[in-house]
Amino acid sequence: MYQYVHGGDIYSDPALQHNKKLLDYSANINPLGIPDGVREALKRTVARCVNYPDPFCRELRVKLGQFLDLPADMIYCGNGAADVLFRIMTALRPKRTLVLAPTFADYEKAAAVAGSKIDYFVLQEEDNFNVPVSILKAITKRTEMVVLCNPNNPTGKLMNRDLLQTVLLHCESMHIPLLLDECFMDFVKDKEKYTMIDQLQEHKNLIILKAFTKTFAIPGVRLGYCLSADHALIEKLYASGQDWNVSGLAQAAGIAALDETEYLDESRRLIGEERLYLESQLRLIGLKVFEGTSNYIFMKSERNFPWAEKLKEHHILIRDCSNYRGLTEGYFRIAVKTRKDNRRLIKTMKEFVKYAIFDYIN
Amino acid sequence: MYQYVHGGDIYSDPALQHNKKLLDYSANINPLGIPDGVREALKRTVARCVNYPDPFCRELRVKLGQFLDLPADMIYCGNGAADVLFRIMTALRPKRTLVLAPTFADYEKAAAVAGSKIDYFVLQEEDNFNVPVSILKAITKRTEMVVLCNPNNPTGKLMNRDLLQTVLLHCESMHIPLLLDECFMDFVKDKEKYTMIDQLQEHKNLIILKAFTKTFAIPGVRLGYCLSADHALIEKLYASGQDWNVSGLAQAAGIAALDETEYLDESRRLIGEERLYLESQLRLIGLKVFEGTSNYIFMKSERNFPWAEKLKEHHILIRDCSNYRGLTEGYFRIAVKTRKDNRRLIKTMKEFVKYAIFDYIN
Repeated sequence: MYQYVHGGDIYSDPALQHNKKLLDYSANINPLGIPDGVREALKRTVARCVNYPDPFCRELRVKLGQFLDLPADMIYCGNGAADVLFRIMTALRPKRTLVLAPTFADYEKAAAVAGSKIDYFVLQEEDNFNVPVSILKAITKRTEMVVLCNPNNPTGKLMNRDLLQTVLLHCESMHIPLLLDECFMDFVKDKEKYTMIDQLQEHKNLIILKAFTKTFAIPGVRLGYCLSADHALIEKLYASGQDWNVSGLAQAAGIAALDETEYLDESRRLIGEERLYLESQLRLIGLKVFEGTSNYIFMKSERNFPWAEKLKEHHILIRDCSNYRGLTEGYFRIAVKTRKDNRRLIKTMKEFVKYAIFDYIN
Repeated sequence: MYQYVHGGDIYSDPALQHNKKLLDYSANINPLGIPDGVREALKRTVARCVNYPDPFCRELRVKLGQFLDLPADMIYCGNGAADVLFRIMTALRPKRTLVLAPTFADYEKAAAVAGSKIDYFVLQEEDNFNVPVSILKAITKRTEMVVLCNPNNPTGKLMNRDLLQTVLLHCESMHIPLLLDECFMDFVKDKEKYTMIDQLQEHKNLIILKAFTKTFAIPGVRLGYCLSADHALIEKLYASGQDWNVSGLAQAAGIAALDETEYLDESRRLIGEERLYLESQLRLIGLKVFEGTSNYIFMKSERNFPWAEKLKEHHILIRDCSNYRGLTEGYFRIAVKTRKDNRRLIKTMKEFVKYAIFDYIN
């Protein structure tokens, strides 16, 4: 039976789906919710769904190009970043792909569906799951694709910029595409220092993956994209699947979202503040918190306590990370939400520490 | 440069996209437009897009199963029928695929993306583009997939039921999957006589492709599905791409659409009537009309007259079929619309016959 391995599946349990008390900390979505301008655009666009969507997302790409200060023909849009990821693998068909462990599971899945063997670069807890310089040695002449996630999911760690630049050049010299997932970069403070978007035009082997999903809290709409100066790759992406992968609704949502600059500033401010609040509170509860950079927190419970199951009984979902390659039982990821929600999460967790947890101490 | 080869691309020309006079006869969409219940469901669902969509489309599949009188686990939903088509090819990876010519271009594209060689079974005008019994000989022991479209697009021809049944058994005996596209079946009068849905449970090699797009006039939303009793195939479809291919909006639209039984009856009635009107009028204009069965009409202009270009000057798009494999210049397809629209189309065409066409007579 096919297994879904991600967070956010509130539909597996009808009691959850229609539960008004539900707090979903298992999916990393902007806590400010869908911007009003995006809601309105979606509603306005319903009547236009009688037409096929623009197969080339022309209006969206022009506006996104202006937003990113990049030419529109460096942008390819898809049905969520995951769709773009599968397209990239289908278009490039690497025979051997290097991925991190732990990281987002779909890099491996997409590469395998395209027929690739997978090499894992296993991150170490003693390095706080940071990517070390030894990754350079893991990129060999047999490697045909390198996938990095920055900040990495679920660890929240940003890569050292100099190392990332070195990896890029190393890949370029070996004619290896570097697929860099920056889906969570928009929530990072001083993201300009970390994003590699400024390297795209100089390095055709760099492909950056991005999503509207997390940034604008619209995972139910499906809109992601990638950026590359390799025009032959962009052409191949169009040729590697259906023409109408981005719905008319998603295109309209994306166009409206790009006007939401105040929302983005406010999101970064709120998330920065709340991440610090959550990190300090979680440490008080006795969890090992790996300092994060985006809208989620990665942590480890040294005690053998079933946090995910117990919180679910209190209508709170968190992401049990034990099914990530490279991790074991005891690792969890939570989203960063508003203070009201975060207080409820922390209060519930503290109750467990006070009363229930003693039964589980080894 | 990647070429879009289908109808309905109103975005290539900004003057078209925002033209209130535009009549798009190039895409085959239900002329009744989006049902009110579906519009309302889409608007209502906007607020819920803050959640990831259900990766298994559970509620939609249960309701669709009841609608079709099939178990929900025989249904796989995707981001339009085209997405499902590419998934099927990715999951089954046929080495050699037999397709009709002319037919919908994406069967060939999807098979080729999955690495398949393509064999073409060329339909003949002297047979009115009907599928003849000789197709059985074209299915050889090297064939790993057969794709048929019933009624066929763009010809509108239904296959003889006995022949189709024979093809199915022939494929089954040779362990070849038969992918049967019934996306336009919902508009066919007495469709119960033609659909092969009743054969699914007896024949695991049969896969039927269907869409909400055309039936409920929501191509901008993206929702299609396939049906098969081969549970291993259904599992493979989930494993062959991203988990969230069907947006929350599309799932809600589909659930609402299945209540629209009056709309469906009215659509079939209207389309039956208007197809006869258009066919007779087009013959009066001097076109060779191939008798159709669904919501579109396939025709040939014996005169060297640029119908598509000339009608576009009058804000009417029709589908120039010269880029279909197996066809040449002079073949066109039009959708069946409401009487008001159809009158405008016919009136405009008649004006050309009266005045302009003489310049183009050979």
